[in-house]
Formats: sequence, C-alpha cells, structure tokens
Amino acid sequence: MAVQPPSKALAFAQNKLKMRQKLGSLGLPMPIWSEIHDAQTLDSFIQLMGGVAILKTPIGGYDGKGVRVVRSSEDAKDWLSQEGLAKVGGHLLAEEKVDFTRELAQLSARTPSGDFQAWPLVQTTQVNGVCSEVLAPAPGASEQALREAAEIARGVADGLGVTGVLAVEMFETTDGRLLINELAMRPHNSGHFSIEGSVTSQFEQHLRAVLNLPLGSTEPTGAYSVMVNLLGIDDKNDFLANYPIAMRSHPEAKIHTYGKAPRQGRKMGHVTVVAQNLEWAQQQAHGAAEKLSNG
Amino acid sequence: MAVQPPSKALAFAQNKLKMRQKLGSLGLPMPIWSEIHDAQTLDSFIQLMGGVAILKTPIGGYDGKGVRVVRSSEDAKDWLSQEGLAKVGGHLLAEEKVDFTRELAQLSARTPSGDFQAWPLVQTTQVNGVCSEVLAPAPGASEQALREAAEIARGVADGLGVTGVLAVEMFETTDGRLLINELAMRPHNSGHFSIEGSVTSQFEQHLRAVLNLPLGSTEPTGAYSVMVNLLGIDDKNDFLANYPIAMRSHPEAKIHTYGKAPRQGRKMGHVTVVAQNLEWAQQQAHGAAEKLSNG
Repeated sequence: MAVQPPSKALAFAQNKLKMRQKLGSLGLPMPIWSEIHDAQTLDSFIQLMGGVAILKTPIGGYDGKGVRVVRSSEDAKDWLSQEGLAKVGGHLLAEEKVDFTRELAQLSARTPSGDFQAWPLVQTTQVNGVCSEVLAPAPGASEQALREAAEIARGVADGLGVTGVLAVEMFETTDGRLLINELAMRPHNSGHFSIEGSVTSQFEQHLRAVLNLPLGSTEPTGAYSVMVNLLGIDDKNDFLANYPIAMRSHPEAKIHTYGKAPRQGRKMGHVTVVAQNLEWAQQQAHGAAEKLSNG
Repeated sequence: MAVQPPSKALAFAQNKLKMRQKLGSLGLPMPIWSEIHDAQTLDSFIQLMGGVAILKTPIGGYDGKGVRVVRSSEDAKDWLSQEGLAKVGGHLLAEEKVDFTRELAQLSARTPSGDFQAWPLVQTTQVNGVCSEVLAPAPGASEQALREAAEIARGVADGLGVTGVLAVEMFETTDGRLLINELAMRPHNSGHFSIEGSVTSQFEQHLRAVLNLPLGSTEPTGAYSVMVNLLGIDDKNDFLANYPIAMRSHPEAKIHTYGKAPRQGRKMGHVTVVAQNLEWAQQQAHGAAEKLSNG
C-alpha cells in the first residue's frame, strides 16, 4: 500500500531540527538556527544573537505550544533538565528572533509524479501564537515576492518529496526577505480561505495530489478572501447559539463550525468572505465572527 | 411535524392544470391555455391557436416526457382514449405554441416567514426536451428583464406559498415578453451553476429556507457561470473512465457525477466553469464535457 505523503517527508514536518538540517542542505532561506544540548550552548547562541532567541522543542509543538522566547538558559531550565530533554529526544532547537514586518504562508500541492501548483501567497495574523486572520492574497505583496514565495514552496516540496498539500509559514523581514518559519504537510488553517476563495479548495487539491490525479486550478474566485478563525471563548460557547443572528446580519459570510467541544482559545470554526474590496471583506468576516461570539 | 414546502404548494408543481389555474388567478404571465376533456375541445383549441398547440399530461411529466406538439386530436388519440384520460385524472392541458427566442429560468428561494431571494436570471438550452446548457446570467438580458423575472418568481412564491427553492422556467417571446412555462419547487438543474457560481448554492439556500433560517447572498462569484449537463451516451459510459483526462485538460472545470446507472439521454452529471469571459467559460465547460464523453 502506498501512503501519501511518504513517512520520509512527514519526518521533516514532525521534527523541526531535521527540518532545519534538510532545508539548510537545500539552500533554502530561514532564520539562523542551532541545535541545543545544554545550558552552555544555549547561552552562547543567545549571546551571538544579541541577547534574545527563540527556543523550540523539535517535536510535539503546535499553535504556539513548544515555543518560547529566551534571554538566558534560566528561561528554559525545565526543558534543559535531564527529564525535559529526554521528553523531546535529547535536543532543542534555537533560532534567531527574526525582525519581521508580518507573517505569510505559501500554500501549495504536489503529486507523487512531481506536478506542483501554488495558491497565491497569504498574510496570516497570529494572536497568542494562534492564527486569527488570513488575507488572500497577501496585501501589497510584489510580483517578485509572490514568485519567490512560490519558488520556495516548490523547493521545499521537491526537496523533501512532499505529496499532498504543503503549507510553508514564512516571515517577511524588515529588509524584505522571506524566511521559512514552519512547515505543515496537510491542508492547513492558512488555506481554509480556498474552500470559497479558489477554483480548487485545499481539500479537493489534497485528494487530487495524494491520488496522483491532475491538480486543479488555484485561480482566486474573487479579488480578496478574508478568513477569520472562531477561537473558543470558554468551555460553553460553541458558536451555534448565535448562528441565525450572524446569518441574518451577514448573508455573504460562509460560516464553518467544526463540532468540537468548546475550550478557551481552541479553533472552533472559521468565517470566510470573498469580495472585490479587501476592507469590506474584512469588515464582513470580522462582523460575522463578532455576531457568532457575542450575538 | 412541519413539512416544507407544504403539500398545498407542491400540488401546483405536481399538477400543471392546477398550476395554470392558480397562476391565472394571480394574474401572472403565461401562454394561453385550456383544459381538454375530449377530441372536440382539443380540435377547437388547435384551430383557435392557428393550427398547432402544445398538449401536456397534467401529472407525471418531466424532461420533455408528457409533452407533445399537436396539429389535430388525431396526434393524441392514445392520451384522449378513456384509458389514457383515466391515467392522468381525466384532463389534459393544451397551450399555445409560444413563438420564443430562448428559454430562461428564474431560480429563487422563500422561507416560511416570507423572506425571498432571487438568483440572477439564467438562459437554458434544451436538446430533445432535456436541459443541456445553462448560462448565468442570461446573456444580454436587460436590467428590466432581470427585475421582471425576479418579480414573477416572487409572485409565484408568495402566491403559491412556496418554501425552499423554486425554479420558474420561462419563455422569452419574440416580442420581448416573459411567459411562465413550468415550475419546480426544489433545487433544479437550472440552478446547479450556483454550487460554484454563487455565494450561496441552491442546496445551501434550500436548507436555510425550509429550516426558516435567514437566506444567504445570491451574488455571483464571477461574471459568468456556464453549466453543461453530462447526458448519458449509452448504458455503459458513466463518464468516470475519462475523468483524469478531463481533469488534466481542464483544471478550471468543476466536474460533478451522480453515480447513476448509465442510460442514453439520462442526466449523469454536469460540469461548471465560472469565469470573467463567457466565450472562454463555454469553451472550457463544453471542452471538459467532450473529454469526459470521448476521452
């Protein structure tokens, strides 16, 4: 039985140290990084980086979990203890704290035969480490940036032998470079806009790709798509009670709820609005999310 | 338990004579018609209409079945026999043969509370009595025609107490009038374009409507949508064998197959293309249908 994406590719998404090593060997742009075994190597790295660094557990992190800003090894005593290191395979990953203007994501898909299609680059906004808004395409991105981002995604997809949907999360630095932050080899939160905002959604494309069928068009269906996450407010509100209120006030909003048990900060659903005008789409998407949250 | 649409409304879609009587009482525009009990009344009507008429069985007809062009009662001997009349409730429906330039359909939805939303008027092309192509919106339709069609649909929906999706099939006469041909109180072939071509699809809208939830926006997602039916070629071709070929040649085509047993002329699926340019969308939709049919 063929399993797609292959486990060889998935290993790079599941272990951030392996991912950095592999991206390095492929010459792809990313933050400066180092493998950390103990307090001393971490303190040296922090000093080199000017007094601050990002420390990550190579496995098991998501949505801001397993990521910490550190100014000294004292800030990571628990992770650096024998017990802490044992939990994550004996290593930690330290990275420069990138001076970025915004976070971007490049969604793409690749088939086992090597066919490749990229969606337009999107802008993602994180709140407390969790994605809260996606704008597609990334407002104000130059033609060159769009091309460069798609080329980076192709480099990752080909280099790692990815099949199916690949999300490459990136930083746009203050001096205009794109640096790879994280990888996800699956339909991804940054691609939910494509359900309504693209001729081919990330879910349809993922199936086409892993089945080695021809990929669909990634043309946008409108000038702008805005996706707003419905983040859990408490352990009671499942965003269903106010559904009809939001439907009435925002007939153009596409509301998705996931049927998950409510928990503060949990991704409970999302709202997408596709429109010719970005500001209008943002108003409607956030307006609908607000109605769903508070009625 | 509330059943939507109510059986009172459905009766008008299921019996074409009742439908004509009701539309007449509402003052809505339609072809000249008459209830037919025997050969003599039919021959009189044909003479009045200038030698030709359309004869319909009031119940049980669809996709061109139960409809016949007649120039004499001799053309309908079987239907006018005691046995034939008994089958259809004792009556037939005769209508003028309308001199029309094209066929149109107005899709809309109404909730039990009376909320109403219309999609843009579409042009439908029939081959052998079966819909083969839908263009949305109807090319060249004037603002006035679009408004008039939506008003006719509202008149039908309110007048008959329709809930859920309503399709009003119409003739556009050579002198520019709109005449009601048939009614369907359900998601309809003329509305399949809305799956990709409208912010709210007819299926979503039907559910919103019958559940008495607020209706969604019927704004188009692109300038034009073209829907082409996949009509059965024989009792073998289910349009699946050439799926990958069509996917490769037409990455922008949204292909739908219904999993039905193949039969000549049967609606086996459809293809929709949404685009800024009508001719291009038609080429792509028909091109994909051709690939699906013949590889």
